[in-house]
Amino acid sequence: MTFDDVTQRLRDFAAARAWEPYHTPKNLVMALSGEVGELTSLFQWLTPEESDAWRADPTLEANVLDEIADVTLYLLQLADRLGVDLAAAAHAKIDRNEKRFPA
Amino acid sequence: MTFDDVTQRLRDFAAARAWEPYHTPKNLVMALSGEVGELTSLFQWLTPEESDAWRADPTLEANVLDEIADVTLYLLQLADRLGVDLAAAAHAKIDRNEKRFPA
Amino acid sequence: MTFDDVTQRLRDFAAARAWEPYHTPKNLVMALSGEVGELTSLFQWLTPEESDAWRADPTLEANVLDEIADVTLYLLQLADRLGVDLAAAAHAKIDRNEKRFPA
Amino acid sequence: MTFDDVTQRLRDFAAARAWEPYHTPKNLVMALSGEVGELTSLFQWLTPEESDAWRADPTLEANVLDEIADVTLYLLQLADRLGVDLAAAAHAKIDRNEKRFPA
Repeated sequence: MTFDDVTQRLRDFAAARAWEPYHTPKNLVMALSGEVGELTSLFQWLTPEESDAWRADPTLEANVLDEIADVTLYLLQLADRLGVDLAAAAHAKIDRNEKRFPA
Repeated sequence: MTFDDVTQRLRDFAAARAWEPYHTPKNLVMALSGEVGELTSLFQWLTPEESDAWRADPTLEANVLDEIADVTLYLLQLADRLGVDLAAAAHAKIDRNEKRFPA
Repeated sequence: MTFDDVTQRLRDFAAARAWEPYHTPKNLVMALSGEVGELTSLFQWLTPEESDAWRADPTLEANVLDEIADVTLYLLQLADRLGVDLAAAAHAKIDRNEKRFPA
Repeated sequence: MTFDDVTQRLRDFAAARAWEPYHTPKNLVMALSGEVGELTSLFQWLTPEESDAWRADPTLEANVLDEIADVTLYLLQLADRLGVDLAAAAHAKIDRNEKRFPA
């Protein structure tokens, strides 16, 4: 799974609409937070077990796919604006977690 | 940038600690939400302009890298548990956005 | 400002619909989180200055009033389920903050 | 339960530290979001049933009281900055919900 071409499409999309001035880290983290809130709301009344059966309800399935995509899009845009390599940051964090939580 | 090996490390990490039972979609979306809250708190008192200068403060820089990594780790674990291909979901959403917001 | 009658209405509302089983602390905190996400999204592209002029846009004004009400309703329901006196908890926290952040 | 004196203490607290310039609606909604994230994280690995037994663990109990207080403090500060009467907004929303979700 690679996200480089997703990031490139997001850059082109924002540039074509002159949206870059809005895409400060502060604003993007708020947008990310808003989308995570929408994703959270989809699972709020489900039991943990029911949440694993999310594909059984076609409306829920479509909404989850839509919202997790929005979360991904804002996380990628935030990382791009910050100049952060998410995969490298993720590996570095797992390294730290391995020391913090020995198996 | 590829995340396949990050996801594999996360699977191994959870398996070695017998944490999979906790990793329901409901629980993971809460964990994701909690980490986004921590990331948000780092930018809350900054102006949008100041938020672009986050690397000027070494403590802030370290905290942002740490929290955006946590967000990434939980998003990847959620997608893995859901069986969702995030890159495909992201592309599909950009396709929809291109129709919804013509340039 | 008192919220006792709001809380009572929320109890009656939930009871009349047999929703209490869904209102566990875990579920209510997710609902609260989702509503805060919606409130956040209303301010995400505004500058801090613009966010103070929210009443200038009637649609934004209505949406802010709607979402801040939702946040309040879930916070009150969470506190009620937890058996927490929010005003007492708030005063106790200000007491702690006064020691932590001397003027 | 009344919150008027909590709001007054929060005003005095902010004034004594010259923090009002930071308390724009945009910034306060981010702070609220961050605190809700911390509250969410306390319940993320609990089952819904376990979340009702939060007082059984003294550390969890203290943390929940601390975080729900922080959420309350930022919600009150946001409402104060916006000039919104939260109780009135809450009642108006319940009125709308009664029409939207007939018992």
